[in-house]
Amino acid sequence: MRIVIALGGNALLERGQPPEAEVQRRNTRRASQAVAKVAQEHDVVLTHGNGPQVGLLALQSAAYREVSPYPLDMLGAESEGMIGYLIEQELSNFLPERNIATLLTQTVVQQDDPAFENPTKFVGPVYSEEEARRLSRELGWAVAQDGRHFRRVVASPRPVRIVELPTIRLLVQHGVLVVCTGGGGIPVAVDESGAIQGVEAVVDKDRASALLAEGLAADWLLMLTDVPAVYDQWGTDRQRAIRRASPSLLEDMDFAEGSMGPKVEAACRFVASDGRKAGIGALDDAFAILRGEAGTVIEAGVEGIVWGD
Amino acid sequence: MRIVIALGGNALLERGQPPEAEVQRRNTRRASQAVAKVAQEHDVVLTHGNGPQVGLLALQSAAYREVSPYPLDMLGAESEGMIGYLIEQELSNFLPERNIATLLTQTVVQQDDPAFENPTKFVGPVYSEEEARRLSRELGWAVAQDGRHFRRVVASPRPVRIVELPTIRLLVQHGVLVVCTGGGGIPVAVDESGAIQGVEAVVDKDRASALLAEGLAADWLLMLTDVPAVYDQWGTDRQRAIRRASPSLLEDMDFAEGSMGPKVEAACRFVASDGRKAGIGALDDAFAILRGEAGTVIEAGVEGIVWGD
Repeated sequence: MRIVIALGGNALLERGQPPEAEVQRRNTRRASQAVAKVAQEHDVVLTHGNGPQVGLLALQSAAYREVSPYPLDMLGAESEGMIGYLIEQELSNFLPERNIATLLTQTVVQQDDPAFENPTKFVGPVYSEEEARRLSRELGWAVAQDGRHFRRVVASPRPVRIVELPTIRLLVQHGVLVVCTGGGGIPVAVDESGAIQGVEAVVDKDRASALLAEGLAADWLLMLTDVPAVYDQWGTDRQRAIRRASPSLLEDMDFAEGSMGPKVEAACRFVASDGRKAGIGALDDAFAILRGEAGTVIEAGVEGIVWGD
Repeated sequence: MRIVIALGGNALLERGQPPEAEVQRRNTRRASQAVAKVAQEHDVVLTHGNGPQVGLLALQSAAYREVSPYPLDMLGAESEGMIGYLIEQELSNFLPERNIATLLTQTVVQQDDPAFENPTKFVGPVYSEEEARRLSRELGWAVAQDGRHFRRVVASPRPVRIVELPTIRLLVQHGVLVVCTGGGGIPVAVDESGAIQGVEAVVDKDRASALLAEGLAADWLLMLTDVPAVYDQWGTDRQRAIRRASPSLLEDMDFAEGSMGPKVEAACRFVASDGRKAGIGALDDAFAILRGEAGTVIEAGVEGIVWGD
């Protein structure tokens, strides 16, 4: 089977962990071990998030005051290099016989996407209100309150095309294990002249991974994160894990925006074609999810919802 | 013809230019235009330096004091992402019909390379003597005096293998224009167990490009930089440009270590096989060098040295 695995940014750098190089390497090793187990039996294409990492790169870039902070597209490209390197190296040590390639990936979004009118995704460091207003004035940033501080907000437009898809497909057809579409891909737009240019946005990694999985005609989209399954009424005393469900039933339910919501949306979109399956669950359960023994599996034609604990 | 083009780090960020994002983008556009002209008639594989860029990333990483400075292999990976992104995007706007792919590249060096005994390559920010001694004690860095300041020095070991060569070859065979081996590739070593690990070193970009060009059986290795040719007695009133020469004549001459020396060495190594040519010269002369109308061309069997101005 051909499986697109999307590793959550939090699978590589857990919430609350210091973003030290050694911490990232250790987490990447654990994630790579889980992915390698799947890759021993299936054709795997691996994508990953970059939220915590691009946040750190933005802080580092802002801390060195001799040079203006770098734009998000360039920071995203840096994060694809850094995270891709760790993954490729750790993965190759579990799969020494495989060719593994990390491909820089750009994701096209539409310049008239309504998300640009209403940027909601927090990125980069926190500022005082005064500093945030100044940056907004000087650099044209949208800023918004985040708890006690102010932060920059950017749009998260819908991905419409993965620029490097033909090359990714070529590599997959030749048995190369491809690491790509890091952080959802570097957001770019096509201008009137047809030229591609970076845009100040963040593409949701799960939506981009669903688009990639469609483009590669994958059998599975497997989203690995730090929770064991999709839950109904998460965080209440009535929470229940969803083991299996059809997309039509999930589409009527509410999930947390910015975390489980986009995963469920990406899953439902991907399984709209018959025979495709999507899985959501914990990193260490990757193999068990494919066997239907853990996590949440979403596929068309399931009657009702199969509940877990 | 199959041509490996190595872009000098200074072709993307000139000496003395501030490393602002916009400056890098503008320089990359100019370099991409020169490369695109060659790529319209030949199969091009593009490598690039990363000296100024990895220096900036090291400064940014050190400026943000909440997290320990990142090791050189991870910074090198970041620079491959960032520079590769700019090149791929700008190049694709000159060659909209071509598939262009940027591949993360690791270069294997030997752990017993004598260069590790005698690190000479300056990297990262400048420190006071006291600070440098402290970092040397705490982090095990080798440090050395650089003018009035102290800096970290790392080894520049000989590249012995490019890990992703089979994938690069596959892509080239399918007509993809590949950007790879950025900064000479991320330096890695193979330990006793066979595992690949990053090492604190810098691989010379021209040496790594020569190794790549050999591995790809390229016809040409074209090293583009900010000087128009190789000069004998450079910087004296007797300086003369070398237009054509055989490797055997150049090997007896002295060139500046750390700049022209490694280029001439890489050229001589590459043209040791019959029929191969190497060129060294200015970015804007790329096409003219291939025609023998500019720069320095090195090939076996040339009688004597053909001098220019």
